[in-house]
This record gives sequence, C-alpha cells and structure tokens, in this order.
Amino acid sequence: MHNSVSTPQSSVRPVRTGIVGASGYTGEELVRLLARHPHATLALAASRSLAGKPVAEAFPQMRELLAPEFTFCAADPEALAREDVDYWFLALPHGVAAAYALALTAAGRRVLDLSADFRLGSAALYKEYYGGDHPAPALLESAPYVLPELAPFHAWKDAPLIACPGCYPTSIQIPLVPLLRAHLLRPSPGALVINSYSGISGAGRKAEISYLYCERDESVKAYGIPRHRHLSEIEEQLSAAAAAPVVVQFNPHLAPMKRGIATTITVPAPGISIAQVYAEWEAAYAGRRFVGILPPGQHPDTGHVSGTNRVDISASIDPRTGNLVITAAMDNLLKGAGGQAVQIMNLLAGFDETDGLL
Amino acid sequence: MHNSVSTPQSSVRPVRTGIVGASGYTGEELVRLLARHPHATLALAASRSLAGKPVAEAFPQMRELLAPEFTFCAADPEALAREDVDYWFLALPHGVAAAYALALTAAGRRVLDLSADFRLGSAALYKEYYGGDHPAPALLESAPYVLPELAPFHAWKDAPLIACPGCYPTSIQIPLVPLLRAHLLRPSPGALVINSYSGISGAGRKAEISYLYCERDESVKAYGIPRHRHLSEIEEQLSAAAAAPVVVQFNPHLAPMKRGIATTITVPAPGISIAQVYAEWEAAYAGRRFVGILPPGQHPDTGHVSGTNRVDISASIDPRTGNLVITAAMDNLLKGAGGQAVQIMNLLAGFDETDGLL
Amino acid sequence: MHNSVSTPQSSVRPVRTGIVGASGYTGEELVRLLARHPHATLALAASRSLAGKPVAEAFPQMRELLAPEFTFCAADPEALAREDVDYWFLALPHGVAAAYALALTAAGRRVLDLSADFRLGSAALYKEYYGGDHPAPALLESAPYVLPELAPFHAWKDAPLIACPGCYPTSIQIPLVPLLRAHLLRPSPGALVINSYSGISGAGRKAEISYLYCERDESVKAYGIPRHRHLSEIEEQLSAAAAAPVVVQFNPHLAPMKRGIATTITVPAPGISIAQVYAEWEAAYAGRRFVGILPPGQHPDTGHVSGTNRVDISASIDPRTGNLVITAAMDNLLKGAGGQAVQIMNLLAGFDETDGLL
Amino acid sequence: MHNSVSTPQSSVRPVRTGIVGASGYTGEELVRLLARHPHATLALAASRSLAGKPVAEAFPQMRELLAPEFTFCAADPEALAREDVDYWFLALPHGVAAAYALALTAAGRRVLDLSADFRLGSAALYKEYYGGDHPAPALLESAPYVLPELAPFHAWKDAPLIACPGCYPTSIQIPLVPLLRAHLLRPSPGALVINSYSGISGAGRKAEISYLYCERDESVKAYGIPRHRHLSEIEEQLSAAAAAPVVVQFNPHLAPMKRGIATTITVPAPGISIAQVYAEWEAAYAGRRFVGILPPGQHPDTGHVSGTNRVDISASIDPRTGNLVITAAMDNLLKGAGGQAVQIMNLLAGFDETDGLL
Repeated sequence: MHNSVSTPQSSVRPVRTGIVGASGYTGEELVRLLARHPHATLALAASRSLAGKPVAEAFPQMRELLAPEFTFCAADPEALAREDVDYWFLALPHGVAAAYALALTAAGRRVLDLSADFRLGSAALYKEYYGGDHPAPALLESAPYVLPELAPFHAWKDAPLIACPGCYPTSIQIPLVPLLRAHLLRPSPGALVINSYSGISGAGRKAEISYLYCERDESVKAYGIPRHRHLSEIEEQLSAAAAAPVVVQFNPHLAPMKRGIATTITVPAPGISIAQVYAEWEAAYAGRRFVGILPPGQHPDTGHVSGTNRVDISASIDPRTGNLVITAAMDNLLKGAGGQAVQIMNLLAGFDETDGLL
Repeated sequence: MHNSVSTPQSSVRPVRTGIVGASGYTGEELVRLLARHPHATLALAASRSLAGKPVAEAFPQMRELLAPEFTFCAADPEALAREDVDYWFLALPHGVAAAYALALTAAGRRVLDLSADFRLGSAALYKEYYGGDHPAPALLESAPYVLPELAPFHAWKDAPLIACPGCYPTSIQIPLVPLLRAHLLRPSPGALVINSYSGISGAGRKAEISYLYCERDESVKAYGIPRHRHLSEIEEQLSAAAAAPVVVQFNPHLAPMKRGIATTITVPAPGISIAQVYAEWEAAYAGRRFVGILPPGQHPDTGHVSGTNRVDISASIDPRTGNLVITAAMDNLLKGAGGQAVQIMNLLAGFDETDGLL
Repeated sequence: MHNSVSTPQSSVRPVRTGIVGASGYTGEELVRLLARHPHATLALAASRSLAGKPVAEAFPQMRELLAPEFTFCAADPEALAREDVDYWFLALPHGVAAAYALALTAAGRRVLDLSADFRLGSAALYKEYYGGDHPAPALLESAPYVLPELAPFHAWKDAPLIACPGCYPTSIQIPLVPLLRAHLLRPSPGALVINSYSGISGAGRKAEISYLYCERDESVKAYGIPRHRHLSEIEEQLSAAAAAPVVVQFNPHLAPMKRGIATTITVPAPGISIAQVYAEWEAAYAGRRFVGILPPGQHPDTGHVSGTNRVDISASIDPRTGNLVITAAMDNLLKGAGGQAVQIMNLLAGFDETDGLL
Repeated sequence: MHNSVSTPQSSVRPVRTGIVGASGYTGEELVRLLARHPHATLALAASRSLAGKPVAEAFPQMRELLAPEFTFCAADPEALAREDVDYWFLALPHGVAAAYALALTAAGRRVLDLSADFRLGSAALYKEYYGGDHPAPALLESAPYVLPELAPFHAWKDAPLIACPGCYPTSIQIPLVPLLRAHLLRPSPGALVINSYSGISGAGRKAEISYLYCERDESVKAYGIPRHRHLSEIEEQLSAAAAAPVVVQFNPHLAPMKRGIATTITVPAPGISIAQVYAEWEAAYAGRRFVGILPPGQHPDTGHVSGTNRVDISASIDPRTGNLVITAAMDNLLKGAGGQAVQIMNLLAGFDETDGLL
C-alpha cells in the first residue's frame, strides 16, 4: 500500500523496516539511515501528525533520496501490525510507545523502542520518574536494555522487543561501565559527578518559545537539576555494572548547537592508574569501531562526532585531587538515538555492525 | 596629543582614563564602557599593534560613539606614564602587563590590571603555573586582588595597583566564597567539582585555525584538564575564604557562543540546608546589584546575563546525594573582565558602583 | 498604581513613557531603552499576555536594571488612556495597534506606533496588502510617517500620532531617498532590485516550528517573494521621494542570526558618478550620527551595527554594468524598530537625538 | 607505500583515486566521499602542509571510517604522477593546481581540477581576473568545463583534464543556463542581478582574524563587489549559453553558517510565462536527481540541501515588475565543490551518477 524507498544493491537478503513516530528529529535520522542502508528497505514511515504527507516534503534534505510518492502512513497500531515488516523502530514519546510495542510484538514483529518505556527494570521505578503507571508492565520485564557494545549478544539476540538506551545514558555508560565492571571505581553516593551538555535537538521538534532560535542562540544553561528523568536509567545501569548501588550527581545542560552531547565525569579514583583505565577500555572495545578512545589530554569534541555513530572518550587522573576526569562526546541523534538503533538491527539481522552507519 | 571621546554631562568631576592593550576583545569592551561612562573621559587607548589607527575603524560598532579622530596611541610605558591619566586599565597578556604596571605606578598613576600578572599571592606560584620568573615580585606582593563584592573596600581603596580577577574565577568565587567563609562547606581535596563553559571570546582575538567559525560552530569540548592556569587563582582565593586549603577539580570547556560563562559546581554539603546557603548569599550580596540570586530550580542562563555586568547564581541540594549543586552564569567580557574593572574604578573614584554599567 | 523604573539624573524634566505590547522582541528593546534613558521614566509596560508578571522575570537580562516590583499591566485601551503618560509606544501587531491609537490620542496622549497600521497613505492600499478594512481610516490620514533623518521636523513635531517605519523600509530609504529626491535615479519599473537578509528576531517571539533553533540554524532562505507586506510601504515612500511612481523588486530572506538586516540594492545609474551619490548622502546626513557613510568598497556588516541605532551605507558604481550597487546594514530591533521610535521621542521632547541611544 | 582506506563491496571494478590538497575544507569532503564510495578506493591523500600526519587525526569526524595508518603523503607532482591512481582530484588554490595538472596528465592520469586554473576559456581572461600569467595556457584550452547536468557527456568523456565549476557559478548556472539556451531571457547588460550568500567554509581553512568565530557569528556582509573573481567564470558560461554576451551584476555576501550558498536572481522576463520557465527546467533536468525543482512560492533553503549534492531551484514572475525572480540553494562544499567532482568521476567511470552521493 505504500512505496518503499530503497533498493538494496547487494546479495544479502534485505530486511523490511518501518518507523513509528517518523516526523520528529529522531524519526528523521531513522528515515535517512534506513533509506540509505545497503541491506534494508524502509517500507513504512508512520506518523501521528503527518499521515498522508510525502516524507520528502517534511524532510527536504532527503528529496533526492526518497521516492516522491513515499508518504507517511497513519499510526494505527493494529493496522501496522498487519504490515509485512521485519523490524519496527519506535521513535515516540514515553507513554506512547508501549501500545505500539504490545501490538507489534503480539503480531510477531521485532521492535526496537527508542522511547523510555522499556528502559527501566521495574514498573515502580518507571512510576517514580515518569509519573504514571507503566502501560505494559509484563512486557517491561522481558525487554532487554541493549547498549550493543556492553550487552552480551546472546542475551538479546532473540528478544522480540529491545529497549534502546537514552542519549545522555549512552555517553555516560560507554566510559564508565567497563571501569565499574572491573571494580576500578567504587564511588560513594554522590561522588560520581556527571555534567552533560546537549544540543537543542535533544528537546525534540516542539513549538515552544524556549526552543526558538532567538532564545537559545548564545545561551548555555542548566536544567533538570537535581532529578532529570534519565537519572533513573543511568543509575540502574551503572549499579548493575558495579554490582552495587551507584548514586550519581547528574547535571544536564543545553548548549547552542543543533546536535551533540558533551559529557564530563569526575570521580575519585584512589589507588588506580590511568593505564588501568585505558586497559579496561581497550579490552571492552577492542574491534568496536563506534567507540573512539583518545589519549589523555586529547579531549573529545562534539564537532568531531557530529554526523557519526561514534562516541569518543578520553581520561586523565589529576594527581592533585586523585580524581579521574573523563570526557566524552557523541551525536545525540545518532549514537544517542537512531544510529544506535540501526546498529542493534544490524547485529540482530546478521549484518556487519557498521552497515549503513559509516 | 590625543582626542578624548566623551564629555561627561554631570556635575561630578570626571576622571581621566586610559587603556593599554585596547585592541583585543577585552580592550574593546573597556573602550565602549569608558566612552559611554557618565563620569569618565577615555583619554588614551594604547595598542601595541594598531598605534595610529582610528579606534572607530577597529571597532565599527562604536562609530557613532567615538570621535573619528580618536586614534590608538603607541604603547610605550614611559611615554604613557607622562600622560595626564587618573586610572589606567591594562588589558594585556600575562607577562606583558607587569612592565606597564611598574612604570605607571612609579609615576603615581593608579592601575587596574586585568592580566594574571598580579593575581597570585607569590612569585613561586606564578612561576609554577605561568612558567617563568615573575617580572615584578615586589609589586606582586603589594597588589590587592579585588573582586569588589568580596574584598572589603578599606583594604584596597588606596592601593596604587589592583589585580582584577579572571573570568572563570569570578563565576566561581561569587557563589562559593560566602559559603566557605561561613564554613558551611569543608570539602575534602577534589570533592569540589567545577565545570565551566566559556564562549569563544575567552580565547582572545587570535588568528588561529582552532578559533575559526567553521571549527567552533556546533562544537562543545573540554580543554586544559587537569591544570588550567586559572586553577592557581581559584584555589588561592577559595583557600583564603575557607581559611584552610581547598583543592578543587576544575574542568573548563569551550561552547559555541561569542560570550558568556556557565559554571556548575557540585560539592558535598553534609548537614546543611538550602536555606543556609541562600541566607549566606543574601547577607553577602545585600544591596549589590551585580549579583542575581535566583531561587532553587531556576537556573542561570548565559543568554540572560550577556551584555550585563551581573553574575546570576542559584543552588539546590540533592536529597539523594547530599550534594549542593550551584549554577552560575556571567558575561566573560563584562563581569568577567572589563565591566568588573570599571566597577572597581567606580568605587575607587567615589562614583556609584553601577555608573556606566547598567 | 505601578512602579516606574528609572530615576533620571539630570536637570531636564523627565518625560513619562509607556509601552503597549511590551513582551515581544521589540517591546523588550523599548523597555531596555526607556529604563536606561537619562530623561525618561518608564511608567507602564502593558502586555496582553503577561499582565501581572514582573517585567524582570520576562526579561532576565534586565534584572539589575528594573525594580523587581515593576510588573506588566493589563492592556485595556481605556484604562491606559487615563494614565499619566506623555509618550506611548505601541509595539503591537498590525490590526491591533489602531484601537490603542484611537483611545490614547483621544485622551490627548502622544502616540508612537511601531506597527504597520498607520504607515500607508490610504486605507485602500492597507486593504490590498493587509487584507482587511483599515480600523481607523481617519486617523490614518492624519498620522505622519516619520523616518527622522528624512522627514522635516516641522511637519510632524505637533502630530498626536506618528507612524514609525518598518525595519526593511528603513534600511532601504536611508540610502535611496536622498538619491531619488535629487533625481539622480529614475529607475524603470522593476529595475530597482532590493535583496534584504533579516535576523530571526524579525519574525517575532512566536512559538512556531519554523522559528525553532534547529530549523533556522545553518539556514538562509528567501520568503515572501514577490509580495512582502513591507513592499507597499517601500514603494509609497520611494515614490514620494522621486515625485514619480517607483516600482521595485523586493526580495526578503531569513539569515541565521538573532538580529540585523543587510540590504543590497542594485539600480541602473546612467550618467551619474559615485561622487554625486556620496555628495547627496553627505548633504542629507550631515550632523546625523545614526547614519554611517562608508567609502566605496568598505561594506556594511550587521555585526558592526548590532546593538546600535545606526544604519551603515556604502555604494559603488560598477563600470561594467553601469549599475549603482548600494549595501546597507542595521539592527532590525533598534534603528529598525525600538531605537528609531526613541529617537523620534527624543526629537519631539526637545532632547538630543542621541540621548539614551549611544 | 600508503594504505588505502576503503574496500568496495560490489562486483564493479573499483577505481583508484587520489587527492592533492586534501587538508582544506574541500579536501576533507573529498576524503569523506571517496572513502565511503562503493566503487572507489582512496589510494592517496596528498597535502603540502600535513604530509606524514594520519588523515584521521586531521579529520576526527572520520576516525571510524579511515584506517589509523592512512597518512597524508607529500605533494610532489612528479612522485604523485608515478602512483597507480586512475583519478586525481586537485583541491588546491588557483595558481597552484596547474603544475599538478601538467605532471599528472603527462603521466596519463585523469585529473579533475577543483581550482579556478582551468575554468576560463582564455589565458587573457585568467590574467585579467587572477592577476598573473596563466601557468599552463595550452592545457587551459583543451580542458573542458564540466557542470555535468549542462555539459553534453560526449564532449568531455575522454578529456584527460576537467575543470570543475566554482561554487557560486554552479548555483547560478543551474537555473539560468536552460533559460538562456532557450532564449527565454535576453537581459541587457547589468539587468541580470545575482545576489549570493555563502557560508564561511567558502573562505577556506585560513588562520585569519576575519574568519574567527567571534567575527563572523551574527554577521551578514557583502564583499567583493563589484568584481569578484567568479564573475569571469559566470559571465563566460552564461554568454556561451545565450550565444551572446551576458553581463551580470554579481553581489556575493558572507552569512553566519558553516556551509551553504543561497542565490537569488532577478531578471526582466518580458513576454514569458512561469510555465515556460518550468518547462525548460523540466526538460533540462529530467532524470537528474541532483537538481530539485520546487514550485513557485516554495523557496530553496540552504538547510534543506546541506550535506547533499543537490541544488534546489524555484522561480516566480512578479506581475508588478515583469521580472523573473529565481531562488537557489546548494551546499558549497558538495554540489559546489567535492560532490560535483565525484559526480563527474562517476560519469567518467561508468558508475551511476549518484553512487556515493546519496
């Protein structure tokens, strides 16, 4: 009923993909990535607000990439569940994604959810941070949380529904999880201090005064302190890595750029050397092209990862304070959202991890 | 021999002012502030690189403010010392300012130095952080460090030479010093974590690839970790306030904006309440219009202080971590440099603190 | 009933001023200019949407400038007409301003209208471009259109209601009107080609997707071709200057900056010399500090006029084409709106034209 | 001797490519495009300034794309001529490229020159605009100028050296050439008025004060009026299309964005209809994916073509003036430079025109 947009050019059997919530900034990235993907066909792009409109009109950057007749379809969960689609990507607000996940998994489709609906381990924590009963608690418990460089493949390769990590949490877990797993760090509550700076696209395509060009240009500001919603996800994952409770200070900010997250982490590091830090990183990320390990003193720059699916990380130990200081940078819409979801699909489908992402 | 640019319109006796190093970004702000000042005459603007050039050509934003014949004069210390000037502002690189301070104070002029040359308490610390012997160690010891909201007036009102604070240090001392003086905070070494984000003008008007528009646009990055030069000044001042050694983690960054500094501070705050924090701030800054105290949860924004001489500060205590989280924002070229120097001159000359700065 | 914000410091009798529509970008500039003005008191800031809110909360850049208790008042025309205010500034959308102009002038107040309601010479032209019957046709005919460098003072010094020029039209008339009045230029219809580039603040503080940071950053685009509303005002004024019909091609664009208009004009100039152009400009603007005349080859830059009330203009004649090419730059919110209105008030009140504007 | 960076994945025989001048903004785009290209291997990246440095260090955005050991090689023409490379791309300043073109073509390599050295039809015109004797006049005459949508393939398919168009000229020829060839437009000298706005990358990666972030942010300004160097190329090509001399007014500007060119063209269009314009465009560009034809009233936006190899064009006829107004937008580094050169290589090598460019 809809036109698909790409004709894969290789001998690998292409997968059929669909997006729900295709009209936001993350949805736009997914359209681009899947339309260009060498082994995937973007079969459907569903939107609650733009159904019937040609996708290339909403995303004029992709005019030469998309067939003019490829239009957003309606976002009815039951109807979408009947479509011939192998992988569904949900780029929807929290609280909205769950209904689609239920319908699509019930129909036997595989679902990659980019919302927060299935990231947490319990409905109780969800309620505490997101303020309502979880819409699908049973599904929540069965959905693995997959940061592909950190979650062992066997644990999620057959999962019908996968929770994709949030943007801030990805930039934080990549440098910290290997160190916590190795028990190099054992921070007391609040001693792990995380400052993150996000580009404005992180706020989504919303018609609000505070995201106008004239309000955000030339402006850096903190927000969401002390209890940003991503905190629940960050602490749950870091605690699992440490096999002990980890309580962090998370200070998010907005910076005047379209995309990118720069994260700076300070943590006491008694008795460890910078060589140990780099050794854990090298071991954890050997052969993974989407983690860039920079030498001490060479700091990640959001401008260097913009448009890529890579996280750059670096660290040094301050001999004066005994702290480990980690800096990380990432594109919030790619490795922090759409790119990482496609990376997961690549692995599920047996493609190379980097296909369509270089 | 040079034309002055403003004719004060009031009955207060105007002071005659001069700038050395007038062609950089801080020099430009000083030209603007002094040319507009209701009780000051900008008598001389000296420049090592632009002597002989009309100032309005270098700073076209001020074409209607400056007399077309007002030109940069040469920056010879001995010649400048013979000029009829009451207050000299040195907007020069560290290591260069000292020679001017020596010549001008020897001639009985009052000098406000915006460089780092006289900010530290000892020549030894200067050598450790700035890498050379101090050019005027005797003068260093006699020059008071003046953040006007924090240094008692009687201690510096007659000083011939005043060291004006650095940009990052101002944004850090304003929120922290009252709390340290009251002994509300007693952080162990490295537990006071400071992340600062500066606009690009902080790097000065230098023809370097890394400060080109195309390199800095859409880019946030850390630099100077773990040992930025301002660290020496920060720790010396915080230690003095605490009457005990304070060792901090200072993480500076560049953000894609012209001007502004956003500072976020995390520090353990066992046993204290947010009310105590605000009470100390209210007491310290009662009647001071250049410190804006925002309620918890309302975060300072560099866009809200750009073009002003104000620092905005806010704080909250995170009940989960026990940390105090402070956010601050400031214009690096005004309260962080030229504006603060003019504020000091206002107080020295007996003007209202805010004259020419609202 | 409301608190005023400034205490003029001179012996000139201060005037009492008020703003209707104080919460938009132009309103914000007017608040700043009037609160700082040496001879004016900002008595009232009326807003249709923010009545009751402290003005310094809406405009945090002015926290140290405004009394905390100075709040937006309601925007009821009849109630405002009873207030003790000498000069009212209307910073309202077209179609809305007229009702205030009627009520306030009926009460004997002087009104400076920054909307388009009284800029055109006839209700018929208004209807053609603005799509409705003019709300106050009688008042329209009596309201002079005042670009203060071009309209002779005697013709408007006693007018109860003054129409302030639009932003684009100001940047166009300043260079062209002296040349048309001198009959140096006699362009055939459409041969006078005007391209203008405006900062995003020109679109107002509106919560629309198309003015979000992520939509406008890195974007230059044309809009409103071939029939932008300002065209009516431009042609009416240029025709009056030429004493003959002038039909222009006007191509407006948006550029990724907060403020500023850059205008480039191309027009055939048979038989005239560049010296004649500059001679007319020098004659028209002798002694006027808000027009900067740059030599041929030195082009105006919006960055050089941002934050000022100045228009910079320059011109050259291309010997290959015989065309005169004029470039102009201006701050759309100052000389293009609020600054120009304050300049007009200065002249009406007998102040120096530049008071509060340098 | 050097490592190549990509392993094409298809059955098409890959071509071996090299870049001279690989360290500038255009060179960087070529590295990215060729490293990603499905049918090309980037064998060599020569740089006069960075020889020996790993390419991924200079271009950190490509860290996961490039082999770490792939380094810039020296830029000696004779040595490069001995390398096994099918297509050389010269991304060099004018005056420098010619020596490479001579050496490489003499060795039988095919050369795509992105400099201005071979764009003009005569050494005399080159000398007039570029101020020196042409370094290789014989080669100049034999090198075809290839805008691939406009130059017939048979005329250049065997050329050893191809002159790639300049950025401004591409955005101008795409909309105008079909109309001039059809004799729809016959503008008198100077009546064709072209205003172009370029992102800052157009100035190259040069350490000059005027291209610093703080100088260009918030700034739109004209430059190079009335005689920008690209004028020679523009007029030569338009005259050839019209089969008659075309003398234009070309007004270039800088806008505060990294990349993109927005061009607005005004030209008298007596007796023609907008339908005729679109008919010529549709005929000229049928099947060409890198020209986007937008309906009248829907204006191209640099943000919509950024990162693409597409030019968007639109037009309307103003009934009041009789003028045709054309708007166009393009990425200066892609369709205006590196993307177009790769498009030409694709056609020469028998690949699909869009390979590696979607």
